Amino acid sequence: MSKTLDLAQDLIARRSVTPDDLGCQELLISRLEPLGFKIERMRFGDVDNFFARRGTASPLLVFAGHTDVVPTGPVDQWHTPPFEPTIKDGMLYGRGAADMKTSLAAFITSIEEFVAEHPDHQGSIGLLITSDEEGIATHGTVKVVEALKARGELIDYCIVGEPTSSKVVGDMIKNGRRGSLSGKLVVKGVQGHIAYPHLVKNPIHLVAPAIKELADTVWDSGNEYFPPTSWQISNMNGGTGATNVVPGEVTILFNFRFSTASTAEGLRERVHAILDKHALEYDLQWELSGKPFLTPKGTLVEAISAAIETAFGVTPELSTSGGTSDGRFIADIASQVVEFGPLNATIHKLNECVGVADIEPLKDAYRLTMETLLT
Amino acid sequence: MSKTLDLAQDLIARRSVTPDDLGCQELLISRLEPLGFKIERMRFGDVDNFFARRGTASPLLVFAGHTDVVPTGPVDQWHTPPFEPTIKDGMLYGRGAADMKTSLAAFITSIEEFVAEHPDHQGSIGLLITSDEEGIATHGTVKVVEALKARGELIDYCIVGEPTSSKVVGDMIKNGRRGSLSGKLVVKGVQGHIAYPHLVKNPIHLVAPAIKELADTVWDSGNEYFPPTSWQISNMNGGTGATNVVPGEVTILFNFRFSTASTAEGLRERVHAILDKHALEYDLQWELSGKPFLTPKGTLVEAISAAIETAFGVTPELSTSGGTSDGRFIADIASQVVEFGPLNATIHKLNECVGVADIEPLKDAYRLTMETLLT
Repeated sequence: MSKTLDLAQDLIARRSVTPDDLGCQELLISRLEPLGFKIERMRFGDVDNFFARRGTASPLLVFAGHTDVVPTGPVDQWHTPPFEPTIKDGMLYGRGAADMKTSLAAFITSIEEFVAEHPDHQGSIGLLITSDEEGIATHGTVKVVEALKARGELIDYCIVGEPTSSKVVGDMIKNGRRGSLSGKLVVKGVQGHIAYPHLVKNPIHLVAPAIKELADTVWDSGNEYFPPTSWQISNMNGGTGATNVVPGEVTILFNFRFSTASTAEGLRERVHAILDKHALEYDLQWELSGKPFLTPKGTLVEAISAAIETAFGVTPELSTSGGTSDGRFIADIASQVVEFGPLNATIHKLNECVGVADIEPLKDAYRLTMETLLT
Repeated sequence: MSKTLDLAQDLIARRSVTPDDLGCQELLISRLEPLGFKIERMRFGDVDNFFARRGTASPLLVFAGHTDVVPTGPVDQWHTPPFEPTIKDGMLYGRGAADMKTSLAAFITSIEEFVAEHPDHQGSIGLLITSDEEGIATHGTVKVVEALKARGELIDYCIVGEPTSSKVVGDMIKNGRRGSLSGKLVVKGVQGHIAYPHLVKNPIHLVAPAIKELADTVWDSGNEYFPPTSWQISNMNGGTGATNVVPGEVTILFNFRFSTASTAEGLRERVHAILDKHALEYDLQWELSGKPFLTPKGTLVEAISAAIETAFGVTPELSTSGGTSDGRFIADIASQVVEFGPLNATIHKLNECVGVADIEPLKDAYRLTMETLLT
């Protein structure tokens, strides 16, 4: 049994449903302290976080991740108890196996191996670990990053251990994520009885041409790394329920997933321009839930890609697809951020698992990246 | 005190909130039987109705109305108790005073006067009285009309006693009403996560251009009697509530108020053509809640207009505006239908009232119409 598998099982056995950490972080810390890491526990609200650093020199390579997991869903539909890590047919089952306790274990054991071999490595190794990535994510990475930023502690390279692999482990790393910009639009009209159309202004009729134009707009064409920015309505509700009344307003919730070819500010301006062009009376509240980030091909992408090729025999594809991740926060203080980890096929589902045979190569990929960047 | 005022007060004192009649109809019947009316009580479900007829010859002139009233609303905001008819400053207050117990009283006393003077009048006088006009209107006029139609008893002239007057009594009669055609449209898309726009089909985006076209369409230009047909959305709802999910469908409730320049069938076809042109996948359920009816200038309109001029010194305007009324059902078996009654300013409101000075002329207008048509 490998040390990585062993540690992954110890972590999975802790029922750390978000935002509870339940001792996972102390377990990691107990492995890091003997290696000479300086540990900084950062509890914000009810969320445990820690930042650990070995060395003071540049470059600083940080491994980032979370100890919290999503709820199990119906336990009786799991083949094995979700918090009893179980190996069956070559797979390690348990909640958090893929997202992302195996990555955390591989962080630790890869660092142990690397430090044993290179006790005087160049630069610094860091760990940024939170327990609220799966929740509202307000007291985790975002706060730790604020603290680091406040004291000017910037990151050169960051590897987030999210499960990014698609078909086989190593086939995909995320070198960026789209931004997410949401709007709550309330278009005003004049309510009235449907039998007196000359006395009403129907907000649904008024907004329809604007929706058409917003939906037809090419916001950008994306770029080498990003698909085009997309605009989608998630909810639209207007009406009193009565079938003989024209409503006084209609509420529309929409969201941009946007590439680095656009800015949040630019998108906001363009939406207002379209709404104004259609002479709508409206209220619009914006929420920027994540700026896009991008790590173009360069030192970190090349180092981890080469490490993956060596460890897994697979050439990883660069991708910026999918939802948001804590990478969006870290990018604020890190020059280069990539995400790499196990297969994501079973995450957030029943019977979450990782292939046992993929665990040692994962640890090796992380270790080989350190070899490239810190020796 | 006039007989009409007296009877109106007796009717208002009965708390006949829809669909309860509470003896109003028996009170009317007790006045009609001595005049030689043949009474036919028609109770459908929990709704009292009656049809009364004096004579068997043509033409048949029917007075139509309802004994039920709408609820009072907050009683403490009435200046006088709503079911205690009260005369104050020249007004008769009480729920139903305008809509339409004074009209019912005027029907009776005008008939009493007319029959006393013309016991052997030409044609026949009828009364079609229901107690569910203010409710869902499924067990009232519509059922009585069905019964009359089934036995081939057709109406030549019908006067509905609805409060049609606008500024002064006599200024407006309704010689028709628009039709009402409703649709429940469900437009289908493909639901999915908002971060994967290439995997979704957003039904709100898809339907927007069709809404624009439907809202922009000139369905007809109306005609001498009707304003143009109007199309309005009353309710539009799509979305799971979650802000990161594109909904799988959107539901739109709409309504046509349509003139005799269009047909329900024609409007349906045109809506389908527009939806099909936009290549939408949809479900559309139609409900025709009222066909339009129209009584052009002719015998009845001229008779009642002249009667109003004599009684009130006012020339009535013909109008087809406003909501639907029981006239839509009666028109199915009546060649000519008009609506005429008191001021509608206070109907369905607190402190409903009629002017006491308008009561005798109202009775006279009905009587003079009988003089013209049945002598």
